[in-house]
Amino acid sequence: MKLKMMYSFLNSDINIIEKELGETIQARSLLLKQASMHTLQAGGKRIRPVFVLLAGKYGDYDINVMKNVAVALELIHMASLVHDDVIDDADLRRGQPTVKAKWDSQTAMYTGDFVFALALKLMTNIKNPEAHKILANTMVEVTVGEIQQIKDKYRFNQNLRDYLRRIKRKTALLIAASCQLGAIAANVEESVHKKLYLFGYFVGMSYQIIDDILDFTGTEKELGKPAGGDLLQGNITAPALFAMENKEIKKAIETVHENMTAAEIAKIITLIKQSGAIAKSVALSDQYLDKALRILDELPDNKAKKALRDIAKFIGRRKF
Amino acid sequence: MKLKMMYSFLNSDINIIEKELGETIQARSLLLKQASMHTLQAGGKRIRPVFVLLAGKYGDYDINVMKNVAVALELIHMASLVHDDVIDDADLRRGQPTVKAKWDSQTAMYTGDFVFALALKLMTNIKNPEAHKILANTMVEVTVGEIQQIKDKYRFNQNLRDYLRRIKRKTALLIAASCQLGAIAANVEESVHKKLYLFGYFVGMSYQIIDDILDFTGTEKELGKPAGGDLLQGNITAPALFAMENKEIKKAIETVHENMTAAEIAKIITLIKQSGAIAKSVALSDQYLDKALRILDELPDNKAKKALRDIAKFIGRRKF
Repeated sequence: MKLKMMYSFLNSDINIIEKELGETIQARSLLLKQASMHTLQAGGKRIRPVFVLLAGKYGDYDINVMKNVAVALELIHMASLVHDDVIDDADLRRGQPTVKAKWDSQTAMYTGDFVFALALKLMTNIKNPEAHKILANTMVEVTVGEIQQIKDKYRFNQNLRDYLRRIKRKTALLIAASCQLGAIAANVEESVHKKLYLFGYFVGMSYQIIDDILDFTGTEKELGKPAGGDLLQGNITAPALFAMENKEIKKAIETVHENMTAAEIAKIITLIKQSGAIAKSVALSDQYLDKALRILDELPDNKAKKALRDIAKFIGRRKF
Repeated sequence: MKLKMMYSFLNSDINIIEKELGETIQARSLLLKQASMHTLQAGGKRIRPVFVLLAGKYGDYDINVMKNVAVALELIHMASLVHDDVIDDADLRRGQPTVKAKWDSQTAMYTGDFVFALALKLMTNIKNPEAHKILANTMVEVTVGEIQQIKDKYRFNQNLRDYLRRIKRKTALLIAASCQLGAIAANVEESVHKKLYLFGYFVGMSYQIIDDILDFTGTEKELGKPAGGDLLQGNITAPALFAMENKEIKKAIETVHENMTAAEIAKIITLIKQSGAIAKSVALSDQYLDKALRILDELPDNKAKKALRDIAKFIGRRKF
């Protein structure tokens, strides 16, 4: 089953979100518009808006309110990708040149700032002060995580806890916030929106672990960029950490540096794949997926619940 | 009279702001803390917090409310400086190495993001939704201006309108927002907070024009960086624009490029200073200063009004 089929009852609302995303970034500056549209059109699963809308189904769902949160969360995600591409010195994302590659780092930095400011502007349509507190706290954590990620690069003596804390801030917190803010925008009661937050957090952890696995197991065509890129850039993820339990492989991984040849890094990737580290990483992701599904059990039954369950399973078991 | 003497009745509250600024950026990440503290300690006039507090004196002034806005506005200013230094590839600001120079562009980018997120967090203590709308709109305009500034670099056929639009977004809007948000945080009525916004806008324009003049007329010691840096970096400001009314000088200015020697740029700066362009720029700043002072005449008399008047005059007539 395709991802989009899991929430087909949201189709017309998803179209509204997509239209709104395009209209929001119709900036007066041609450069900004081009750079933002470029990022927008590069696609993506729009997972965050979908979670916002589904969470809203637990309360007084009004698409004219919900769309502000849904578009804002996708814009915040976009802004962070644009900034990340500067840091990672990445030329490709989803098979497309990045803003940083197509223009320059400066343009990417300000495009990120601009897209983030647009998100804030949309969020001001949400009156509940709690929503703003949650978003601001999330942004503080996300930016702390971004700096941590720079510091952790090529730091081979880190452990799984360092990794989990990093992906929490990098991915899980914003997905958790999407679920919670969607619920709050629909006046969902606290006991429920807190559960939706937890659901989003666990799904986000599972999602990022799978993403990190795919960076080893995916083909260049599936990834839109060469495999093993994370490790080459010094981003030590779950498969590398599990593989390093073997001292010989650890030694090999510790030789990684950014100017390694494709053949050299390919050899190390093969070592990691043969070590059993991928299966251990999948098991780790599954633990988070199970936690997410168990939270859902505690929520009332509705269409959204089935969709959230299907999406969580899809995300946690996707092959690309 | 020194700037600080003009609002000595705020002394204890300014100390609270300074303490709060330091406490806010006590991040858990040592790198972030160091990079943020570095920017904070580089000093600055704290003009935005002072305007926030003075504007609050027109209403129900409560320092425990006001401090959120005052610290937030200074943090937003700091964040934009840290990002600007990446763009300008600046190594010095106020005589101190920039975050970008002391660490790297990536650290500077994320430090800016982090400091901005902290500002948002503080602002969530302000319940009035209008405050958030004003801030978000200001941020959108500021980021549009930042991109425009990149595009306008070394574009010698721009006119004064391009320049004024640029400094509006670069400086005046945030000072205007400081005045207006300070007033709104103190529940000042709309007719008054709109005037305070205009006052801030005019003072901000005057302030930036003087800043741009000083970049030509100041000594390296006063500026904390070599004179003529704006022009060398392709930032075409009022003095250069007025000087270009003379065709000969225009030809000389059009030869400017970033790898020019100190002697070459010094020669062009001398031409500009001898052209009468400085006096014309001062007159332009004075026009904005006069507008600011006229707005003040329409506001009720109080201690704040006298301080606002003194500060506006100080800013508009400062020599360094």
